[in-house]
Amino acid sequence: MSAPEINPADYEAALADIRIRLGDDAVLTGEAAHEFRDPYDPLDESHYPAAVVQPSTVEEVQAVVRAAARHGVPLWTSSQGRNNGYGGSAPVIGGTIVVNLRRMDRIEIDEELGLAVVEPGVRFFDLVEELRRRGNRWWTSAPSLGWGSVLGNTADHGFGYTEYGDHAAHVPALEVVLPDGSLLRTGMWASSASRAPHPRGFGPNVTPLFLQSNLGIVTKLARPLTPRPEVYAPLTIKAPAAADVGPLVDAMRILTTEGTITNIPNLTTALGAAAMRKPRDEWYDGGVPIPDDVYQQMCEELALGWWNCVAALYGPAAVVQARLARVREVVREHVPDAEVTVKMISGSEIDDEIESLTHREALQAGRPSLVMLETAKWRGEDGGHLEISPIGRATAQDVQRMIEILRPVVEAEGYDFWPSLYVIKRSMMFLCVLNYDRFDPESIAAAYRVARRAYPALAKAGYLPYRGNIRVMDMMQDQFDWNDHAIRRFTELLKDALDPAGVLSPGKQGIWPERFRSLRQSD
Amino acid sequence: MSAPEINPADYEAALADIRIRLGDDAVLTGEAAHEFRDPYDPLDESHYPAAVVQPSTVEEVQAVVRAAARHGVPLWTSSQGRNNGYGGSAPVIGGTIVVNLRRMDRIEIDEELGLAVVEPGVRFFDLVEELRRRGNRWWTSAPSLGWGSVLGNTADHGFGYTEYGDHAAHVPALEVVLPDGSLLRTGMWASSASRAPHPRGFGPNVTPLFLQSNLGIVTKLARPLTPRPEVYAPLTIKAPAAADVGPLVDAMRILTTEGTITNIPNLTTALGAAAMRKPRDEWYDGGVPIPDDVYQQMCEELALGWWNCVAALYGPAAVVQARLARVREVVREHVPDAEVTVKMISGSEIDDEIESLTHREALQAGRPSLVMLETAKWRGEDGGHLEISPIGRATAQDVQRMIEILRPVVEAEGYDFWPSLYVIKRSMMFLCVLNYDRFDPESIAAAYRVARRAYPALAKAGYLPYRGNIRVMDMMQDQFDWNDHAIRRFTELLKDALDPAGVLSPGKQGIWPERFRSLRQSD
Repeated sequence: MSAPEINPADYEAALADIRIRLGDDAVLTGEAAHEFRDPYDPLDESHYPAAVVQPSTVEEVQAVVRAAARHGVPLWTSSQGRNNGYGGSAPVIGGTIVVNLRRMDRIEIDEELGLAVVEPGVRFFDLVEELRRRGNRWWTSAPSLGWGSVLGNTADHGFGYTEYGDHAAHVPALEVVLPDGSLLRTGMWASSASRAPHPRGFGPNVTPLFLQSNLGIVTKLARPLTPRPEVYAPLTIKAPAAADVGPLVDAMRILTTEGTITNIPNLTTALGAAAMRKPRDEWYDGGVPIPDDVYQQMCEELALGWWNCVAALYGPAAVVQARLARVREVVREHVPDAEVTVKMISGSEIDDEIESLTHREALQAGRPSLVMLETAKWRGEDGGHLEISPIGRATAQDVQRMIEILRPVVEAEGYDFWPSLYVIKRSMMFLCVLNYDRFDPESIAAAYRVARRAYPALAKAGYLPYRGNIRVMDMMQDQFDWNDHAIRRFTELLKDALDPAGVLSPGKQGIWPERFRSLRQSD
Repeated sequence: MSAPEINPADYEAALADIRIRLGDDAVLTGEAAHEFRDPYDPLDESHYPAAVVQPSTVEEVQAVVRAAARHGVPLWTSSQGRNNGYGGSAPVIGGTIVVNLRRMDRIEIDEELGLAVVEPGVRFFDLVEELRRRGNRWWTSAPSLGWGSVLGNTADHGFGYTEYGDHAAHVPALEVVLPDGSLLRTGMWASSASRAPHPRGFGPNVTPLFLQSNLGIVTKLARPLTPRPEVYAPLTIKAPAAADVGPLVDAMRILTTEGTITNIPNLTTALGAAAMRKPRDEWYDGGVPIPDDVYQQMCEELALGWWNCVAALYGPAAVVQARLARVREVVREHVPDAEVTVKMISGSEIDDEIESLTHREALQAGRPSLVMLETAKWRGEDGGHLEISPIGRATAQDVQRMIEILRPVVEAEGYDFWPSLYVIKRSMMFLCVLNYDRFDPESIAAAYRVARRAYPALAKAGYLPYRGNIRVMDMMQDQFDWNDHAIRRFTELLKDALDPAGVLSPGKQGIWPERFRSLRQSD
């Protein structure tokens, strides 16, 4: 998709203004900008950025936004641009100028309260390193890949694996450049003097308005940290049968809702671990689906169950022991054949023990890595992936229903059914991974056919998406259809009021400014 | 304050339209409307409503909003109208039509997930009763007085005493009538089919935009419930010295941040309990402050410490015991002379044991009452009160500083310094209660002098308000001053975009529609 109504001369004029203000080295074009294409669909020219600009300060972000508004040229924001399953830094409208915020990388830590304030360029790796440098008194929450932006992940409604793993739910305050180039601070930061990390200020809380949003460019946000526990106890629950998934979800909902497990349990099949060991064709040279007996052998070789759940307990040894007994009780009740294993690690020795932990165990202690990148190589070295990620009620009945809907659609297009489930107390995020060869347009097209068939079918049954790739954002937003798409009409009313020139990330999450609304792809 | 630009004939025309649509009995005027004045400042004519309308359905709320917009007549919303310290149902602009939602009182309970969906007329008493009728499998969070609206309290950023005590932080979805009379549902409710109580939908989360807000009239919202625990263990921590408050706040911050205590601890002096026993002049017939030796006698007679903290533990017996040991350890470390006592109550027998519990102990199990109303009688039978309620970082240093700022201002106007502190993990709400005779204009004026002196002084030191009385909302919003009041300018931009006729609750939280902006009272 491109925006034919933008005159190339306006782009040039905007970039010229930006060069004068930010310096030539802050503007990337040609090959230098290739990194900011969608890494998992590199041949798709329709979403190539025209150029990339890299401001170093808030004032420079303001200058970029003002230049864009002056010349009527749309921008697209990325922090690190590592949300690869969703498009990386690639804009919805091809030919847009990408504002990449990697150069803004300051971290502040409030050691007394356990709070991090980060700029968009701060990666999870950077935050972990800063906390380590300070003695590891506080731990962060992180997604599996540590190279991404803490702020970017949070702003995109991303998830991690700790108590604060629902990152967007735990942002007390942020700073944002509005579409007119002015600056706003939210929550208690809306006062000159407050340093209280209260969840909101006085009057309507507008912080969440800038997450998964094109209403501003977030330049700083606050996030709580977890105190280092006396004992860190990662759990593994192996369930032997395919049908165990429902009762396992029930058990995790009960345990998280009652507060016995305080982080976000993750349920997976063996495919992720299998992919980290070797590519698909070394496990099985046939088509889809992998037969049950082959899958069973895979589980045995990897010492995994049919379903595998990780979660963790944190706290004083006695509290962890008491909680563990309760976990065993609830799991036994719901999934009698499941096996629960646990490691007990001293919180203060976590970094010495890190080698003895699996990557998932490290992750629940807020230590991300890059090992999960290996899983993309399931179909060959040049792997890419697309995620289908609906949210459902966290119940046995709902997870079964989601599988019934998703699996046939996925397999009909030649993909392995590869679920990863996150139990977020009462709701469940059902991540379904489609791994393909990123230089093979046909399998990429097949992946998008899955998305276009699966989402409407899921939505009809009550399972709506939480996040989406730039190519299908309109279709995903379409699913929120109550009262003739009241939510989209409302959000676009806000968009038009705040961004009359339509410059900030048009089309993001299916929200279009009036000026570009004709570009919406209605299915 | 009144709105002289509204023609009385327009009010009459709007009310006539509303009578036709809702029926005569849905419109209260004259004496029937007196109940909806500010109960704690009944003589202040400047905030009397012109009339009260009581819709029974969402469609009727829509009809009322449309009639108001058609005739350009402002409305003010109340659910039950029991937030008495903040004005009850009284509007900022006198002569406004109050939309009172008591007639909308449906409750739905999702027994599997532990979720309540309530309309505005549902009181905490009603919700508790409904849960009891269903076997008490789930408990609610509630503020001390049970007569108020669950939805109204949540929408006003009110607090309770359980894990979900920060009510506004736990609203997955709501339904709202917009200023144009149209209906919006937020979160996952923005789809026709979803029943997942996920904290947000796809794109910017607009749910919080309608809490402590005049951007819509909330007609329904969802709230999580707490599972009945095996053991409910209310704690009392008595600290002997005035100086113990700081270390006690530190201890509570540490215990809540690490997850040992999962509810919201509340620290009080003896004044509340003293007021429930008998009025001030029976304790002490002198002026302010009550001398330390008299206060000490009061504590002894009431068997209280100088500072008294309540909190609670919930869960399996072994988990509760292990947590209790950790509570004792942290309290001993920070406040060596404090005494920790605990009751162990079977969660399933809570209602049989209720008589043996103090009202605070019942409250942390989600059982509110009306006994706290007695405290308003400190200065006589016709008691009323005003609250000063800044938010600070939950640290010893900050609580001391807040006391240093507040106490002299309060006492200079002849009030007893009456603090009640809520530790909400990293932040602390400092509720300072001013009890007066509600028919004595001079002591009411003195209370507002306290507010007008205290808030700016507090704000300068970093302590900003969380909620406020209708008479001082402008002054409170003024304190959020960063970047020339960017937050107010931003929120009013939203207000003008959504409510061009300026009909919904003008002036609420200091947010004014363009039409009435000249009524803002700048200090």
